[in-house]
Amino acid sequence: MIQCGRHEDVSLSFRDRKDFSCWVMGTSQELPIKKTLQMHSGSGEELRRSSALKSKRPTDSEVIYRNSDGHVIKFNILTNETEIVLTNTTFINFNVAKYSVSPDLKYVLFAYDVKQVYRHSYMASYSIYNIHTREVWELDPPEVVNSVLQYAAWGVQGQQLIYIFENNIYYQSDVKSNSLRLTSSGKEGVIFNGIADWLYEEEILLTHVAHWWSPDGERLAFLVLNDSLVPNMALPRFTGMAYPKGKQYPYPKAGQPNPVVKLYVVNLYGPTHTLELMPPETLKLREHYVSMVKWISKTKTSVRWLNRAQNISILTVCDTTTGACVTRHEESSELWLSKQNQEPVFSKDGNRFFLTVPVKQGGRGEFHHIAMFTTQFRADQNEVRHLTSGNWEVTRILSYDENTDNLYFLSTEGSPRRRQLYSVKTVGLFPRQCLTCELNKAHCLFFDADISPTDQHIILQCKGPGAPTVILHSLNNSNYYILENNSLLKAALKVKRIQMTDFETVPMEHFDLPLKISYPPDFSDSRHYGLLLLVDSAPGGQAVSDRFSLGWDSVLVSSENIIVARLDGRGSGFQGQRILHEVHHRLGTVDVQDQIAAVEYMMKFPYIDRTRIAVFGKGYGAYITLMMLKSTDSLFKCSCAMSPVTDWKLYASAFSERYLGTPLRDDSRYQFSSVLQNVQALREQTLMLVHGTADANIHFQHTAELVKNLVKVGANYSMQIYPDEGHFLSQQSRQHLYATLTSFYRECLKEELLPLPDEEDEEEE
Amino acid sequence: MIQCGRHEDVSLSFRDRKDFSCWVMGTSQELPIKKTLQMHSGSGEELRRSSALKSKRPTDSEVIYRNSDGHVIKFNILTNETEIVLTNTTFINFNVAKYSVSPDLKYVLFAYDVKQVYRHSYMASYSIYNIHTREVWELDPPEVVNSVLQYAAWGVQGQQLIYIFENNIYYQSDVKSNSLRLTSSGKEGVIFNGIADWLYEEEILLTHVAHWWSPDGERLAFLVLNDSLVPNMALPRFTGMAYPKGKQYPYPKAGQPNPVVKLYVVNLYGPTHTLELMPPETLKLREHYVSMVKWISKTKTSVRWLNRAQNISILTVCDTTTGACVTRHEESSELWLSKQNQEPVFSKDGNRFFLTVPVKQGGRGEFHHIAMFTTQFRADQNEVRHLTSGNWEVTRILSYDENTDNLYFLSTEGSPRRRQLYSVKTVGLFPRQCLTCELNKAHCLFFDADISPTDQHIILQCKGPGAPTVILHSLNNSNYYILENNSLLKAALKVKRIQMTDFETVPMEHFDLPLKISYPPDFSDSRHYGLLLLVDSAPGGQAVSDRFSLGWDSVLVSSENIIVARLDGRGSGFQGQRILHEVHHRLGTVDVQDQIAAVEYMMKFPYIDRTRIAVFGKGYGAYITLMMLKSTDSLFKCSCAMSPVTDWKLYASAFSERYLGTPLRDDSRYQFSSVLQNVQALREQTLMLVHGTADANIHFQHTAELVKNLVKVGANYSMQIYPDEGHFLSQQSRQHLYATLTSFYRECLKEELLPLPDEEDEEEE
Repeated sequence: MIQCGRHEDVSLSFRDRKDFSCWVMGTSQELPIKKTLQMHSGSGEELRRSSALKSKRPTDSEVIYRNSDGHVIKFNILTNETEIVLTNTTFINFNVAKYSVSPDLKYVLFAYDVKQVYRHSYMASYSIYNIHTREVWELDPPEVVNSVLQYAAWGVQGQQLIYIFENNIYYQSDVKSNSLRLTSSGKEGVIFNGIADWLYEEEILLTHVAHWWSPDGERLAFLVLNDSLVPNMALPRFTGMAYPKGKQYPYPKAGQPNPVVKLYVVNLYGPTHTLELMPPETLKLREHYVSMVKWISKTKTSVRWLNRAQNISILTVCDTTTGACVTRHEESSELWLSKQNQEPVFSKDGNRFFLTVPVKQGGRGEFHHIAMFTTQFRADQNEVRHLTSGNWEVTRILSYDENTDNLYFLSTEGSPRRRQLYSVKTVGLFPRQCLTCELNKAHCLFFDADISPTDQHIILQCKGPGAPTVILHSLNNSNYYILENNSLLKAALKVKRIQMTDFETVPMEHFDLPLKISYPPDFSDSRHYGLLLLVDSAPGGQAVSDRFSLGWDSVLVSSENIIVARLDGRGSGFQGQRILHEVHHRLGTVDVQDQIAAVEYMMKFPYIDRTRIAVFGKGYGAYITLMMLKSTDSLFKCSCAMSPVTDWKLYASAFSERYLGTPLRDDSRYQFSSVLQNVQALREQTLMLVHGTADANIHFQHTAELVKNLVKVGANYSMQIYPDEGHFLSQQSRQHLYATLTSFYRECLKEELLPLPDEEDEEEE
Repeated sequence: MIQCGRHEDVSLSFRDRKDFSCWVMGTSQELPIKKTLQMHSGSGEELRRSSALKSKRPTDSEVIYRNSDGHVIKFNILTNETEIVLTNTTFINFNVAKYSVSPDLKYVLFAYDVKQVYRHSYMASYSIYNIHTREVWELDPPEVVNSVLQYAAWGVQGQQLIYIFENNIYYQSDVKSNSLRLTSSGKEGVIFNGIADWLYEEEILLTHVAHWWSPDGERLAFLVLNDSLVPNMALPRFTGMAYPKGKQYPYPKAGQPNPVVKLYVVNLYGPTHTLELMPPETLKLREHYVSMVKWISKTKTSVRWLNRAQNISILTVCDTTTGACVTRHEESSELWLSKQNQEPVFSKDGNRFFLTVPVKQGGRGEFHHIAMFTTQFRADQNEVRHLTSGNWEVTRILSYDENTDNLYFLSTEGSPRRRQLYSVKTVGLFPRQCLTCELNKAHCLFFDADISPTDQHIILQCKGPGAPTVILHSLNNSNYYILENNSLLKAALKVKRIQMTDFETVPMEHFDLPLKISYPPDFSDSRHYGLLLLVDSAPGGQAVSDRFSLGWDSVLVSSENIIVARLDGRGSGFQGQRILHEVHHRLGTVDVQDQIAAVEYMMKFPYIDRTRIAVFGKGYGAYITLMMLKSTDSLFKCSCAMSPVTDWKLYASAFSERYLGTPLRDDSRYQFSSVLQNVQALREQTLMLVHGTADANIHFQHTAELVKNLVKVGANYSMQIYPDEGHFLSQQSRQHLYATLTSFYRECLKEELLPLPDEEDEEEE
């Protein structure tokens, strides 16, 4: 998946949200707004660099989290008691970058010397800290010292520990016991046990964690990825030593051999025994992905298998004592299947499960709604009931409370921009109820949530439009506890000069497309403003929502009187499958047309200066930006494409093939969608390219090929490179980038005042 | 040696000028002036792309050369007859990039599919063409087809052929005979036989050819370079395929292990026998270079050995039948020794030789003058006589005519800007005579020359200040024949708008430094002009001379009314050793001060607008440019550094150590000379960086390290990269570069006219 310039949570562990919820207050630490906002307020107050806040539920009524002072706190919602588990000084003393408390609350795992690898993965050294005795020791594989691990975490019971070293999984039943090596086939860059390769991390699992605990901690399911046929991509290195050495890693580009995936389960009690879970017959001999694994009982796990073309998907339930898998649900499509990471929610007996599936709703095509599958006579025969319907979609099913027949979920009902928490009864006429719609309506319209194991409590994350907050709520009564109210950010927002946000729709032939516009605080429609279009999201993404965000562009709006706009055009998500699927087999066509249409629409606003329009895109957005430039003449005064994809044949197989099919038999769609064709059209554009030279996601290759073509046709361009930086820039480079971007667009979009002529310069001596 | 942005001859074979003389008419093909000059003349005439012109002397009165029509011509100066050896269509038909005629004039060696490697070296495929029968066949090593060779050339007799494949030397006694492999130790990137590694090519021999024929063709001397301890540098590759692979090659940076050199001689008649020529005792156990090999008779060769520090040099004469070497001359210095490639000129009996040596001349220190060494009783005891003296230097000794006691040489007598041909009698009071001073004085002040083996004829190359020409002269009478008069260029210069060049001196405390200034053709000292300083040469180089040149900067002068200046400051050549040695152990100090002083001097000119001053440098010049920017505040409105060296520790051992010593014991000099220290000073500069990402000479690393530091301090910069291009850009990239540079400086240096305010824009609908 391509990051598109949005300021996402920096949470690394949010996706495996069984254990952690973690977020950042606003996004203030990402931004250079400290300085720029000060310019517009008399206040000398600074936005304090906020630390990540972590919460954890060791029992159903206890939450462990790190508060804004940096202490790790245990809070009991029943007794209302708080207790400091770790002081903030512990983090400093042990140079801790990440931490996690053991299930029995006696130990803490510290990660230090953390080095990011790809989007989610990182290498780190680990130590174990005894909360009671304050004793600390290193976590190392047998006969290794000062080890750097690919992963380490507690299991689900007591002091169970798992870690991954040199692509092999190691297990410890408690902090003092010997390590057991669960796999031995691991080989750097070739065989991956329990940890994702680049493709699985970025495009399939959306995490680097490729193993899953059974609920009782007695079994572990894990993927084995064999990348021996995947070609290696070289990342050069330029700095840091006299003779810098580059790095190689397997990266399957469109049409190239993919990693071969196998799924195993190992039992950890008694003599270990490893069993392969076999793919369904129809996929066994075809290339396929494993896109989801979720335990549904102590011995059963659900697995989703997906063919390489990503249009046939089979959900099986596997008995991990025998290895037998039974198909519970199948999906297939002429197009690609979306939401293939979605975890089904099962009843305790496993006979019933809930899943969102596309359901035809009329003009806007299918929308994802909750289907309840109940086993009839045989395990592979379901009765299906649809619990929800309408021109909106269910974005996530949270929990099934069998005692109350309540199913909790998040949806876009009301507006695609919002995420509200609902419950629906799984009986009767499936009455549903919004649980958050009346909660702080002025500030909270975009929620995420975690429900406690017994469905008694819920952690509600309000992600916008106001400053993000986190509240622990009871689901039984009106008790609540504020885990984070982001008061510093809120106070700052009150005194700073902050943009105003408005939503519009661009009327199109078949759809109206949502547009988000940020205006300067003292906006007047009798003035003229420059316009910056931010092209933000890959297929299925969303740029126009009620999520809080403050980015480098906000600085332009607040201090440079520039209007910033974002559009969700065809190909974007949360508006039904029809809009999403419009880009099928034609990336860079209708999605590009829509962005241009949005600009032309806004050009009619009386307050937009049509000579001062600019565009910015990153990743997929940079691709769209370049395609827009190729099909417009002098619409944009200037533009910047950061880490652009310029040829889908050079991008990840799972992404490119999902939308464009395989290039092996016929690559005409790839050629048609390539930026590199007919770059003459870019000759007269004012274009800045930005790329990290060690980008492992969108290789610098993309920019290099574009530049080579630009040089060939004699086109101008300017460039910023970030040497040896990857797709995600370091803090320092981000600061530099934001300064570069704000000054680039400030300069480009500034109103050209015609000064009165000064007196003639006097002749110098 | 670092190329410093000057338009040098593209001649590859000029340095081994025994066989070839080769030059390019003007430099018109290098430049985009065709288009820009046309803008200022009514003429639709185009400067025709000229082809390289080659001449060859099979006998003393015959010259073979390629004329401007592309035919290869044999001209006999005695009979005045011309004959076409090869028509221009042959070149097209066989796709020939380079050619060379066999000593017996019966065959031609064609090179095609030529791929440049470093400055001089190239890979190519070769075929042999029978001039008489027009038969063509490939030149391949035994049992290899479609071979790509590192080198191939005729010997000195008949049809002798030599070629180098996979670092081994192959010999054929004639075009049809079997190849004899003379060496077997060759290994790519490790052992080099008869061909230079990167360091020897770029810094020591200044050619990739590391073998030398005895005059009778019976013996071959060759170097064996062992690079097994030299660290490999990686050059990344970004384009051209889905998974581009980089390249590695041995490149000793300052203080790193150097190639180990050995010199061998093999006899080619009878059973081959290879003999090592041993270095002098004092250097045998120390790291050393072989910087020059020249045969002085059928069995004797002269060799110069140089210690790694480059301050002890020993010239030996070796008997290649026994391997015994006798020292004939030694030099040593506290500083570095210059001109270590210089070939001595020997008398036929070997008892006398001529060499230029530094001779103390007064205020400006030592100058290179001709010393005549005559063997006394023992071979290692010489009588030394100095044939020339004065505040000027002998730049090259050409030939010794024992019949007339004439020694021919080139010198700067008259002006350091000039090169005139002189003869001096080796007897009596050594009377000398200028042979070219009265020759076309208006157009020719800068000569190069080749003298025929019997000293009867001379090829005179007039390299400036007028359009370059080539004339074959008799040394006995006034007969001459024009080989190339560059009429197309001359005609173009007449009708185009061309810069005017003026020379000044900048008065400094101890020296006056020469300055070359190019003015627009319609210059008026009552107007104000922008100034562009070109920083051009490495230590020992010369930017201010009477050589003809038309570069991208000429376009700025002619069409943008910009004044361009070049200075030869301390460290530059041809003005005596004292000025040259001023940079010893302190690169980037006094040389930087002088460039700044030159700017400050010119700022006092009434017609220079002191708010519009810019600077450009390439290679060493880019280093100086960056150092200047660090020590000036707002002197320059903008600047561009192309392929800069930013840290001498990252540059070639032989270069860095020559000027800064070894960094092993103490690298404080290196730190002091580094651009990377205190880059904060660059924060407020408008700086453009340009670099090819596959530069094998000055690695992209230099720019990457600089950028990383600029990012760290939040400094602005802009950049152009040339993906996968080396230190010498392809034709297409050069065109792009020149367009980029001219538009960058045009924009930066343009006069800011204050326009009258227009009427208010009308409100748009």
